[in-house]
Amino acid sequence: MGDSGQFRSKLELDDARVTLAVDEVTRLVAAVFENLGCAPAIAREVAEHLADSNLCGMESHGLMRTLQYAEQFESGYLRADAEPEIRVNDAGATLVDGHGGIGIPAMRLAVEEGCRLAGEQGVSAVAIVDVGHTGRLGAFTEWAAWRGFLSICFGGGGREKWRQVAPHGGRRALLPTNPYSIAVPGGERGPVMLDFATSKIAGGWIYAARSAGARLPDGVLMDPDGNITRDPEDYFRGGAILPAGEHKGYALALAAEIVAEAMLGPTTTEGGWLLLTLDTTRYREPTALARVAEEILAELRDCPPAPGFERVEIPGEREREHRQRTRDDGIALPRKTWEQIKRLSERLADPRRQ
Amino acid sequence: MGDSGQFRSKLELDDARVTLAVDEVTRLVAAVFENLGCAPAIAREVAEHLADSNLCGMESHGLMRTLQYAEQFESGYLRADAEPEIRVNDAGATLVDGHGGIGIPAMRLAVEEGCRLAGEQGVSAVAIVDVGHTGRLGAFTEWAAWRGFLSICFGGGGREKWRQVAPHGGRRALLPTNPYSIAVPGGERGPVMLDFATSKIAGGWIYAARSAGARLPDGVLMDPDGNITRDPEDYFRGGAILPAGEHKGYALALAAEIVAEAMLGPTTTEGGWLLLTLDTTRYREPTALARVAEEILAELRDCPPAPGFERVEIPGEREREHRQRTRDDGIALPRKTWEQIKRLSERLADPRRQ
Repeated sequence: MGDSGQFRSKLELDDARVTLAVDEVTRLVAAVFENLGCAPAIAREVAEHLADSNLCGMESHGLMRTLQYAEQFESGYLRADAEPEIRVNDAGATLVDGHGGIGIPAMRLAVEEGCRLAGEQGVSAVAIVDVGHTGRLGAFTEWAAWRGFLSICFGGGGREKWRQVAPHGGRRALLPTNPYSIAVPGGERGPVMLDFATSKIAGGWIYAARSAGARLPDGVLMDPDGNITRDPEDYFRGGAILPAGEHKGYALALAAEIVAEAMLGPTTTEGGWLLLTLDTTRYREPTALARVAEEILAELRDCPPAPGFERVEIPGEREREHRQRTRDDGIALPRKTWEQIKRLSERLADPRRQ
Repeated sequence: MGDSGQFRSKLELDDARVTLAVDEVTRLVAAVFENLGCAPAIAREVAEHLADSNLCGMESHGLMRTLQYAEQFESGYLRADAEPEIRVNDAGATLVDGHGGIGIPAMRLAVEEGCRLAGEQGVSAVAIVDVGHTGRLGAFTEWAAWRGFLSICFGGGGREKWRQVAPHGGRRALLPTNPYSIAVPGGERGPVMLDFATSKIAGGWIYAARSAGARLPDGVLMDPDGNITRDPEDYFRGGAILPAGEHKGYALALAAEIVAEAMLGPTTTEGGWLLLTLDTTRYREPTALARVAEEILAELRDCPPAPGFERVEIPGEREREHRQRTRDDGIALPRKTWEQIKRLSERLADPRRQ
């Protein structure tokens, strides 16, 4: 369920694109991470996760992140050689400690452990701490849902560094974008999966609009006086993104921030996350669940569209359909992004070029 | 976090009110339920829950429901003599079976059992099935949060009967309002608690606006062609409430509906609910959690307000402040509602009057 499709296509118009074979670009990006000091398996896992985000149409969580992660490894902000580890604390709670590394392998380990524990006990909680960017959360919750588990993942923390969103009724950016992802087994076409920021738009769009010289959609940003604006520069002058659904997105964000910072904190690296996992097969036999889910989903797909829409979508299907459609053709990266990744790759392969 | 405060005060202008002592009106309503066949303890519990919703300023979930519940008991739609029961199914999942009674005692039993199990195991899941209206969900999640537990409650089901909300991008009412409530221990003033419908407004407002001859706020309702309208009659002509936060509220609603109908279904009585409970004390010592939560909340309270707002509120505090302010003065019920409750009470006390 991407935000601002209209805005995304604007970015596409501005940039020429290069289409790359999935295997080839994944290998190249994995080599980048390996040259930065990641273990080969982690380098491969992160590269595959990013490439898959592009295939899903989630460019904001795709291969463009290679540049950000590389910078974070090189500056020492993240530890390239970190490997996530499961630990059980004195009170018996299960945590995945990312040891200051990139969050993608930590989140994958958490979802595997969460499903294993929920398979044994019916329900599980796994906290994820001391991690960098966790990638596309929906990839992890959906993985669990394919295996019969309902999962809920949310978090945030580190609001000192990521003050992006105003509380409902306020005009200062005080909170991060505190995302939520929930996935549940669905019907014939796979899980229902949602993955969204609790703000009207994700923070990345502001930077993208600024660099593209574009205006933002109406009603998502306020200037420092609290007036609605479409100019991304107002954000950098002390403005704030509005919460999604007014007080509702704000309340979800605040609950996530308290969990991340007050319950799991103090925040190390970028934030803390909580993953709750439930074994749905303990309530209903999988084929019966899928049959009823399909009835609900079929009804929604048949809903006559509202003005300005082509159809009603099922959360999670846009990503899967995009992957299906683009997998054989490859990943179309903006030329500028690809050139930066290539230069980085060449520099790391031959350190004398630095 | 009530919706449409502006709209609520419009209703207040239209109706003269009678102020009633809390104990007195609670006793009278408990006697109504007892005369309808409820066990004395359940009659008392439901009456207290409804009176407390009025004290919290949540009139839509308050004593006006006495009339609805009485009608449902008298018609046989709900069983007055039902008592909720905990059972563990063959797969080891814990359910509270409401046996077709009102949902308030079932939800209370679920939250007690959810906290007990989470205290033992760290995390728990309790499903609530075969129940009528569950009252104000936030009362239950907040109860758990006062005791150190994070809880998440959501559900729905019964969309055949409650088609109120259009999916994002569609123009037919296909889904119920699928509410979510989350509460987490907070700072000095108590838990952070959210309790909201995933639709732009709760269904009750449409009925209230119709009976008051009022128009709805802009942007919450569509007519049968999918055009935005403020006329409540358009809803009854085949219109639909819009989802909160566009695709975000829709996705939350759909996940809840799949849980309620496909995982916990088939729906009996009104719907199914899932309550997830986590022991926060296993992650951080309560005073440390409260101290950090208070830092976050104090910062939000100090946020300069946006144009049109007086202050930034903390989710859950409006209800507690309202209770604090009104407890000694009593409950101000619309005269018409009070007269209907009194007539019902008299009829039931003396069956010859029927």
